[in-house]
Amino acid sequence: MSTDASSRSNGRASRAAFIDATAVLLRRQGYAATGLSEIVERSGAPRGSVYFHFPGGKEELAVAAMARSGEQLRGAIAALMAGPGGAGEAVGALVEAMAAGLEASAYRDGCPIATVALEMAGGSEPLRETAAGIFAAWLAELEGALCRDGADAESAERRALLVLSALEGALLLSRARRDVAPLRAVADELVPLLSRPSQGADCG
Amino acid sequence: MSTDASSRSNGRASRAAFIDATAVLLRRQGYAATGLSEIVERSGAPRGSVYFHFPGGKEELAVAAMARSGEQLRGAIAALMAGPGGAGEAVGALVEAMAAGLEASAYRDGCPIATVALEMAGGSEPLRETAAGIFAAWLAELEGALCRDGADAESAERRALLVLSALEGALLLSRARRDVAPLRAVADELVPLLSRPSQGADCG
Repeated sequence: MSTDASSRSNGRASRAAFIDATAVLLRRQGYAATGLSEIVERSGAPRGSVYFHFPGGKEELAVAAMARSGEQLRGAIAALMAGPGGAGEAVGALVEAMAAGLEASAYRDGCPIATVALEMAGGSEPLRETAAGIFAAWLAELEGALCRDGADAESAERRALLVLSALEGALLLSRARRDVAPLRAVADELVPLLSRPSQGADCG
Repeated sequence: MSTDASSRSNGRASRAAFIDATAVLLRRQGYAATGLSEIVERSGAPRGSVYFHFPGGKEELAVAAMARSGEQLRGAIAALMAGPGGAGEAVGALVEAMAAGLEASAYRDGCPIATVALEMAGGSEPLRETAAGIFAAWLAELEGALCRDGADAESAERRALLVLSALEGALLLSRARRDVAPLRAVADELVPLLSRPSQGADCG
């Protein structure tokens, strides 16, 4: 590699390392508790380059980290929803993945967006809008699956909101209790509900 | 009043003012963003008395504020659940109250417990345990109402977890979107479900 190419590659690596570190810290402890110094230290990237990559500092880093975490999870939801069992079975599998993630992380890794959204909904429009956009993208995947199962558009929208709300709340209760029973209870109630044939025409 | 009695009364007023100020700030911006100075300033009580009343500082204040908010909301849930319409109608009324609270506060006043619980579940055992105890008390009120409607104990426990999870998640989504549609959608889906006759024996 030429010096220029090597430098660009290091730059990309630093940028990715800052985003990775921010994503982990936001998920585990939220926005206000996460300082730029802690992000830099965890990233292992040169301190001097953080404002080069993120002139907006912590807020810009948080937007980038939330967007990345949100898109990863959107992809995971889409993959589950594309399975042959329909929305009910996919929600059951999503809950199992969430429960496994909580247990594997000693209940540290819940939703990567919820904590920042609650802390900053009243304090930062960029962070609030980023969270709202990510929730909308997740809801679109859930709605699509409910439509493919035969729900009409209004019912799919309402049920997707119920499913995402219940999953977010169950992650909260499970983290507070250090026990995945709330997630399992939500799955036990929702999966049969979603697996019932829906009334009305489909979304198409 | 004697000087002693007046001093005791001022002390009680300061203690209550610190708790009130902490409760408002935790609900709106969470734990990490809330400094002891901001609490003292908002309370109007003498700065020097905060460590007299709360030797454990911000963490002890947060436990007291969460306990107070949690007990107020438990009382409100119990009052709604005691109404003649059963759990379904009561959940509908609870959602309307939550939606009104969000709208009246420009979407600042959501759940008084959720933000701190998510931020601190991995960072403070006293705060995590306080949040878990409050959620358990709310769940007990919901379970009681579902039992009175004829649900068996297991079903009442699962459905109470679904209801509380869905309400917590809908408050999160509503705050992020600045729109109470998620709360309304959850009510539209849950109220008919809860109003259906339950199978099995009742909890007694």
